[in-house]
Amino acid sequence: MKNNPLHQLMNPKSIATVGAGNNPMKMGAIQALSIVKDGFAGKFYPIHPTEKEVFGYRAYSSALDLPDAPDLVMFVLPAPLVIPILDDFGRIGTKRAIVITAGFRETGDEGRRLEEDLKETACRHNIRFLGPNCMGIINSEIALNVTVMPLNTAPGSLGMASQSGTYITQTLPYLQNRGIRFSKAISVGNEADLNIIDALEFLGEDEQTKAIALYIEGLKDAERFLEVARRITPRKAVVAQYVGGSAAGARAGSSHTGAMAGPDYLYEGLFRQAGIIRVNSVEELYNQAWALSTQPPLKGRRIAVLTNSGGPGTAMSHTCNEGGLDVPRFSERLQDKIRELIPPYGAAGNPVDLTFHLDAEVLSTRLPELIMSSGEVDGIVMHGLMSSGFMRAVFPHVSDLLGIDDEELFINQFSRDLTKPLALPGKFGMPMILSSFFGREDSYTKSYQDNNIPVFDAPEKAARAMLALHRHHLIRQRAPHKPAKLPAVSTTAAAIIKDALRKGNNTIDEYSSKRILAAYGAPVSDEKLADGAEEAVKAAAELGYPVVVKGCSAQFAHKTGRGLIHLNLNSNDEVRKAFKQVAVAAGQEIPVLVAKMVKGEREFMAGMTRYPGFGPCVMFGLGGIFAEAFNDSVFRLAPLTPADTEEMFSDIRANELLGPYRGLAPVDRETLGSVLQALGNLALLHPEITEIDLNPIIISGSSPVIVDALVILHQDKA
Amino acid sequence: MKNNPLHQLMNPKSIATVGAGNNPMKMGAIQALSIVKDGFAGKFYPIHPTEKEVFGYRAYSSALDLPDAPDLVMFVLPAPLVIPILDDFGRIGTKRAIVITAGFRETGDEGRRLEEDLKETACRHNIRFLGPNCMGIINSEIALNVTVMPLNTAPGSLGMASQSGTYITQTLPYLQNRGIRFSKAISVGNEADLNIIDALEFLGEDEQTKAIALYIEGLKDAERFLEVARRITPRKAVVAQYVGGSAAGARAGSSHTGAMAGPDYLYEGLFRQAGIIRVNSVEELYNQAWALSTQPPLKGRRIAVLTNSGGPGTAMSHTCNEGGLDVPRFSERLQDKIRELIPPYGAAGNPVDLTFHLDAEVLSTRLPELIMSSGEVDGIVMHGLMSSGFMRAVFPHVSDLLGIDDEELFINQFSRDLTKPLALPGKFGMPMILSSFFGREDSYTKSYQDNNIPVFDAPEKAARAMLALHRHHLIRQRAPHKPAKLPAVSTTAAAIIKDALRKGNNTIDEYSSKRILAAYGAPVSDEKLADGAEEAVKAAAELGYPVVVKGCSAQFAHKTGRGLIHLNLNSNDEVRKAFKQVAVAAGQEIPVLVAKMVKGEREFMAGMTRYPGFGPCVMFGLGGIFAEAFNDSVFRLAPLTPADTEEMFSDIRANELLGPYRGLAPVDRETLGSVLQALGNLALLHPEITEIDLNPIIISGSSPVIVDALVILHQDKA
Repeated sequence: MKNNPLHQLMNPKSIATVGAGNNPMKMGAIQALSIVKDGFAGKFYPIHPTEKEVFGYRAYSSALDLPDAPDLVMFVLPAPLVIPILDDFGRIGTKRAIVITAGFRETGDEGRRLEEDLKETACRHNIRFLGPNCMGIINSEIALNVTVMPLNTAPGSLGMASQSGTYITQTLPYLQNRGIRFSKAISVGNEADLNIIDALEFLGEDEQTKAIALYIEGLKDAERFLEVARRITPRKAVVAQYVGGSAAGARAGSSHTGAMAGPDYLYEGLFRQAGIIRVNSVEELYNQAWALSTQPPLKGRRIAVLTNSGGPGTAMSHTCNEGGLDVPRFSERLQDKIRELIPPYGAAGNPVDLTFHLDAEVLSTRLPELIMSSGEVDGIVMHGLMSSGFMRAVFPHVSDLLGIDDEELFINQFSRDLTKPLALPGKFGMPMILSSFFGREDSYTKSYQDNNIPVFDAPEKAARAMLALHRHHLIRQRAPHKPAKLPAVSTTAAAIIKDALRKGNNTIDEYSSKRILAAYGAPVSDEKLADGAEEAVKAAAELGYPVVVKGCSAQFAHKTGRGLIHLNLNSNDEVRKAFKQVAVAAGQEIPVLVAKMVKGEREFMAGMTRYPGFGPCVMFGLGGIFAEAFNDSVFRLAPLTPADTEEMFSDIRANELLGPYRGLAPVDRETLGSVLQALGNLALLHPEITEIDLNPIIISGSSPVIVDALVILHQDKA
Repeated sequence: MKNNPLHQLMNPKSIATVGAGNNPMKMGAIQALSIVKDGFAGKFYPIHPTEKEVFGYRAYSSALDLPDAPDLVMFVLPAPLVIPILDDFGRIGTKRAIVITAGFRETGDEGRRLEEDLKETACRHNIRFLGPNCMGIINSEIALNVTVMPLNTAPGSLGMASQSGTYITQTLPYLQNRGIRFSKAISVGNEADLNIIDALEFLGEDEQTKAIALYIEGLKDAERFLEVARRITPRKAVVAQYVGGSAAGARAGSSHTGAMAGPDYLYEGLFRQAGIIRVNSVEELYNQAWALSTQPPLKGRRIAVLTNSGGPGTAMSHTCNEGGLDVPRFSERLQDKIRELIPPYGAAGNPVDLTFHLDAEVLSTRLPELIMSSGEVDGIVMHGLMSSGFMRAVFPHVSDLLGIDDEELFINQFSRDLTKPLALPGKFGMPMILSSFFGREDSYTKSYQDNNIPVFDAPEKAARAMLALHRHHLIRQRAPHKPAKLPAVSTTAAAIIKDALRKGNNTIDEYSSKRILAAYGAPVSDEKLADGAEEAVKAAAELGYPVVVKGCSAQFAHKTGRGLIHLNLNSNDEVRKAFKQVAVAAGQEIPVLVAKMVKGEREFMAGMTRYPGFGPCVMFGLGGIFAEAFNDSVFRLAPLTPADTEEMFSDIRANELLGPYRGLAPVDRETLGSVLQALGNLALLHPEITEIDLNPIIISGSSPVIVDALVILHQDKA
């Protein structure tokens, strides 16, 4: 299982640095200092062209002079100098490297060539490496930190992999101020070799890591990402931020690490399919992953809201409710017990509002214990615990009246033993998340944070973190992933495709497109191809009126609004007339498709598209002529499982339409799902197909019928 | 203009407190201490039953003993004691009060009675008051603070009114840690007298206040709120959080301050109509209002993103872009100039990424000046300025190498004169918003914050604050509000309503409902009421085929799926048959409505509803049988102006349908708008109408036609 090359990279027994000297005002030196100052117990070998010692450690002028091959080498010197020295390390047998150095692919053509040389050199020596253009790694388990910022905290449980180095290093003081601690953190930089998917896989296997945060600007291999994430998310939460889905985000990412971004909707679908919790800011990324990494799982929807302040209590209740959690009114029995502990003008119903109160024991211990033991809730959010923060704030106002000069003395008299409240989440196996307007200057905030109970700086953030636990609960409840099985290649479909390619056609006409779909079991409209007016009339008679007549030619892929479609024809004459109108519209007589008129109030659409880095993706959404205005569609990577298609159905906004709806029968979801699966299978079995559009798929009674279809080919893929 | 009673309340020359003694561990005393310790220059009169002195000030046992009537009295003693003492103050001529005391309406029936007594007593003496159950006020202009937390900061520009006291007092240290400063802040509590609308009006008139933040759990008079807000928002930004729109939020608010909450969609519509910027968390409330209160207006969409760190630059660009701002690629000329200032592996295109760099002058001054003077952008967001925060963080790692023991000495050598960068927003009249992962421990963060340039703790927050400026820009661009004029009462409509009420009908049949609408100019389907089969045939002939036949009776208000509607009839026989089928469905022969069949692909709906505290509201949305599944509708308060209806059109998600759309003509917006206006006017002119439903409104060509209508009455309002 632990074949991931990052296991070795993250757990070296010896590290060499190349480029760091004794000037501590240079970034390379500051990074190397983190290795020797933050507690790493292994060997440290500085390589430097002139210095004899670096930070008091013996320095070597070349890798070839080292007494043994270090497990890991870190480069902090200018780009053109990296490759020959990496070659030296390869020769002595070092197998892992971190290339901090920037100036590679992200800078253009010359940098791209340099990066290719770097990869080639590493590959030749079987060296696996992070970077270039990265900020390094943190492994708090062995006190290893190679980043610019000191690691001042105890080991944590949050694993992070990031396409921005900032988020694992410049944010360390920020995280320390918020009580958030990494287990391991990995900056992947340009991903010339090891990438964020490797990092995700590693963190998934890492026992110290209880939840994973990902900052993503673009993925090179969404299929592998999905495969890896699917293995992790049923047992360990993964939270991700993706910022490459807008024009500006994509351009920024590209100049940052050369990341190749894709449209937001593809990532949205990928994350849903993979069971990843998506967030829209780096703060949510940290906060929600921290809560997920520290709290017992949320096992139901019922949340208690406990505060000493009405506003935050209302805001937390509202935020929980809006996100799909319940804030149930407590039983009268429980309320009676709560009332014994709170003032008469407090509220006992849930939210519980103790109102402003200086004795924190009721709020910290007695009320939560009562509530958590009641069996009436599955999790608890709290606001308002405070002691030294408040006392310090008011001290200047009260000190003379009290006759106390010593602030610390004054504050310390309110200090309490918090052993009991801090044990509550563990005791009840129930998540607890707090908010406080006091930071770590307050003894409660600090103690809770240091004991793995998150305290965020606003009530909505505590509620949103609980919502993340709820989302993870739903993900854990998904049936185990069963890989989709591809059917055998249809010879019918293959023949149609081959024929089109032979003729030099990039689009396959509607009739043949439907034959391809039907070959994989998709329900298409009952129809016949007719080569003249009388053949059309004959076809209509055989199919039974009413019928539709449509011009059918690969030349006229898009037929709407061009006089090529004639609906709801009820007689032979109408069919003849329609045939002529098609000929007029096309400028010549062309074959027509005569199809049984499909009637239904509900229209959907589906399709298949390919995107670099993504492989084939299947789309499902609201169809018909209003599709663009509603813009209600979702994407998933092929191949699709039945579970995937069910989630696609529920993910469209207008998902109510699929159920029984206002007298309309429920849609045959299995058949509709099989259409979506067929699209994915077609793409995987016939790589010549670049795109498929099915619009509309009309629901006739409860049965989906593909009424129009277009398959597009790529000549070069033939 | 300044008739608002809060002007006097917020600017007292003398203050009495009732209930505060010398025990500084009691909340009342802590609040009174804020008055005497925070710099208020007026007189202070403590009223206390036993103490001779309070905080060294002479105490009085009764208001009647005071040498003069104080401008303001604040109550911090138990609820039952408040009223007689308020009466005393009334007798000596005090005209303003703040009742901090809780235990009134929010606690149930007894408290409600007590609150009525309080109001009656105040009213008798013409005393205007805040509370009860509030946390007081802050007026930083005169260093007046009556809340529990000390006010440690210089006067600010952010005015706040809150239905939670916490957000103006317990958050003071939080705000101070983030460099956010109030101009004035008002906790309105139970709003027995002065309410949040009064506070909004006051802050709108207050010159020190440059932007306003509102925390709302429920409004008692949405019409007045709209009227007041409409006057303010074209010149001063108002940001609001509303948390009463979910079941849990409403229940919590009710037990908190007895607030009466309403559905979220009504508040959403109210805020849009009023030009209020809505947020979903208290942090966004503070951050966005702070940015709006300190920065010059954003005059266009073009934003520069300037960082020393790729991740935050990408995230800021993405967040701006997603919210509707552009992050335009800079001209080659500007990029060339930028390249002269940044390393070769930096990015010059926008976002500009200087990459990690210890000299802050380029990032703080030279780059922003170059960009702001280029004419290529309208605003700038920046990330990464830091000095002492970073130096302090790395000091433990570098001190021995540097041979420096003194941390402050080390840090101070990097300190710079920031006069020039801090002047940039003013110099260019262009907003600048920063983010930094360092708080006020960093000299840049502190200096910028103290000089009214917001520095938030995450890149997305800086970008979102800029989006708030963008929203305010759009609001400022709205045409000045012209009050809607009500038409004269239609005697036709009044007669129909009177007749229905006389008959004891609460619903008006479809035919008569449409007559009422037509009386106010709304376009209804061309139709006739027919009392028998032959009359129906005659009507159909006159109207011209195809026609629709519908049972028409106040008894059958909801006709769908009950055999009462027969569409697309093309002959006399079909009409006769339909008439019979209606009779079968209804159990007896009933009149039928024969209407010209209206054909159109697009269906909308509209309606009127009343909600306590709101008055009549008009709804517009996507209609037809799919309305529920799409749930795409918006609300506004009546009466509606043409500007209101235009915003309603653009606020539905599927607004594209109104324009020219895939070969369909643009909808006649003026007529559709007049339908919405008619609904509001009907509600205002005929208070007996409680509800109106128009669904569908079919767009025939480009003309809206009301195809079904239902007017519901309230007998008691007759």
